[in-house]
Amino acid sequence: MLVDQQILRIPGPTPIPPAVQRAMNKPMIGHRSEETSTLLKNARPKLQKVFGTTEEVAIIAGSGTSGMETAFVNAIHPGEEVLVAVTGAFGERFAQICEAYEAKVHRLNIEWGQAVTPEQVQTYVQENPAIRAVFITYCETSTGVLNPIREIAEAVRKISDALIIIDGVSSIAGVQLELDDWGIDIAATGSQKAFMLPAGLAFVACSQRAWEKIEANPRPSFYLNLKKYRSNIEKNTTPFTPASSLLYGLEEVLNSFEQEGLDNIYKRHQLMMNMTRAAMKALDLPLLAEDQYASPTVTAVRPTAFKAADFRKVLQQEFNLIVAGGQAHLADEIFRIGHMGYCSVADVLQTISAIEIALQKMGQTVQLGAGTAAAQQVYLEEVQ
Amino acid sequence: MLVDQQILRIPGPTPIPPAVQRAMNKPMIGHRSEETSTLLKNARPKLQKVFGTTEEVAIIAGSGTSGMETAFVNAIHPGEEVLVAVTGAFGERFAQICEAYEAKVHRLNIEWGQAVTPEQVQTYVQENPAIRAVFITYCETSTGVLNPIREIAEAVRKISDALIIIDGVSSIAGVQLELDDWGIDIAATGSQKAFMLPAGLAFVACSQRAWEKIEANPRPSFYLNLKKYRSNIEKNTTPFTPASSLLYGLEEVLNSFEQEGLDNIYKRHQLMMNMTRAAMKALDLPLLAEDQYASPTVTAVRPTAFKAADFRKVLQQEFNLIVAGGQAHLADEIFRIGHMGYCSVADVLQTISAIEIALQKMGQTVQLGAGTAAAQQVYLEEVQ
Repeated sequence: MLVDQQILRIPGPTPIPPAVQRAMNKPMIGHRSEETSTLLKNARPKLQKVFGTTEEVAIIAGSGTSGMETAFVNAIHPGEEVLVAVTGAFGERFAQICEAYEAKVHRLNIEWGQAVTPEQVQTYVQENPAIRAVFITYCETSTGVLNPIREIAEAVRKISDALIIIDGVSSIAGVQLELDDWGIDIAATGSQKAFMLPAGLAFVACSQRAWEKIEANPRPSFYLNLKKYRSNIEKNTTPFTPASSLLYGLEEVLNSFEQEGLDNIYKRHQLMMNMTRAAMKALDLPLLAEDQYASPTVTAVRPTAFKAADFRKVLQQEFNLIVAGGQAHLADEIFRIGHMGYCSVADVLQTISAIEIALQKMGQTVQLGAGTAAAQQVYLEEVQ
Repeated sequence: MLVDQQILRIPGPTPIPPAVQRAMNKPMIGHRSEETSTLLKNARPKLQKVFGTTEEVAIIAGSGTSGMETAFVNAIHPGEEVLVAVTGAFGERFAQICEAYEAKVHRLNIEWGQAVTPEQVQTYVQENPAIRAVFITYCETSTGVLNPIREIAEAVRKISDALIIIDGVSSIAGVQLELDDWGIDIAATGSQKAFMLPAGLAFVACSQRAWEKIEANPRPSFYLNLKKYRSNIEKNTTPFTPASSLLYGLEEVLNSFEQEGLDNIYKRHQLMMNMTRAAMKALDLPLLAEDQYASPTVTAVRPTAFKAADFRKVLQQEFNLIVAGGQAHLADEIFRIGHMGYCSVADVLQTISAIEIALQKMGQTVQLGAGTAAAQQVYLEEVQ
């Protein structure tokens, strides 16, 4: 097999664009220098567009989980009640973060592969009026479900002033988010998904409503303290040492977002999802998520005729093509194809045609080219 | 379209493996340092394996054409007669190099897309016994033809002691070459093809027979002087300043050749050719070269129903996938798909599935997935 080629199609970390890789190789600069200030200053308005907000977006040196914890420790006051919609492994993670502190945590457990509905959340909050915040995973990476956060925010707002706090880790920058317009209060993500960077940066945006609560918090974290990040970014600096090479990369990424256009990026992800799902259907491979709640960034497949883990091994052995397995009880049951960030429709076609060969190698009788043809058909219908 | 992704499928320059790219980013070293000597020392036996020779291989800072000129100016004495088999644009280039000097040049013109046969060369040399060297392009990049150099060398040797001089630019390291065993006298190539490097290095290997003639040459070039390269490389140095970053890359490339194994590399190229050709046939796209003389590194397609140039534009517009056009009178008639060097079977599948969409976009009625399926079938038959 060709040496030094790995085709990385897991739902993050994703491949890094060459220009971003090059940018990250620039020599180090002083973290309190004019150059660093310029990087931050330029990033601010571009990040706001990605989050759909006029508020400042905090740039934290940390992974996605640090972003989630930041949301909690700043916005939730000691002893408050919160609701976590658990639709998969990352909803579970969100709940564990809440439980690590002294909050009273309600879990709304949803079967993995299903989305949580606005009605379910609304009903739960109505029955538990002490709930001060609702935590929802936008894209549940472990199942490929995109929860309808806009509709949930709308439904909750009608009956409660609980904050709506979003885990946007495998969605933001690949799927539309309009924090201000949709009434989302906090959204956080990491850099290693649709932001096409290595892990190491977390981004957190808050609504005015959230800021009021954050300002009143008597006991926020020292490092993950949003007030510090905001007062610093307003002066184009950071409260703690920034991850400079990732800031170089971020500058390049945000420029490429402008070049492609955010709307085009969202359309590309939608198209890659539709192509992938059409192919899996044509190959008789059952999809875990329903069409209505499918994520544009990751597709989970639950094969019935063979073990997903064996199938992943074949893809790796034949093509060094890496798709992800499942998590927790779905670990061996599903495989997950990432199609986010630095991934093109041509990359999706490549993955599908490799999957067809791997199915044959597994002894499955599939019509060669059938999945590819279905994906191509989707492309021809959607791209005029 | 995804920003910063170009899918480069021209017959060289080819994409660079990430490890090679990283290696080339190392800081500069002194060109007469111990480090440079170590790079050269380690490269020597590995290059010999690629050329199939026990003689030293010259490493010249220059492009492929400098390698061709090196072969001529060292091995051909003033006033000698030479034969050039012109099977395409690079045979023509070879003839022009010879004509730039005071040699008497015979051209054996072959229709583009055809190979030159051992019989044709043998007959020509027999009828012109003053010919002292025969120049042949191994892979004629402009047509995708692989000329049968082994058989030609054998046929010529029976009736003449003319040197057999090979342009190996788009073949060596992707297609087997056994300089010593096959009776080839000089073979040259550039770094930007199956060597997976940027252009800038030429490699030239010579037989003992060729060396005798080179040593007796009263008027070789100053820079392209093979005696200087040999006496220097024997001491692990170079006569002129070496292209250091390319030597870093070469070290990595030669290691990857060892890791994959030269035989496996040749098999991979053969497989990529077979997959590409099967797909084109399934899509009713006429191939320029016959199966018997098809090159494992590049496939030329001569569409009849549409302009090749228009088709290339569609591939670029839809996928930023770059295939080459033709050269000279075939400029607008053909397109050429490179499948050499840092290119995998998965990359071939990607190219084919993109071509299927582009055909539809051109208004051609092709069965979607048909070319992909044909290529997949080849893979399944050849890879056990």
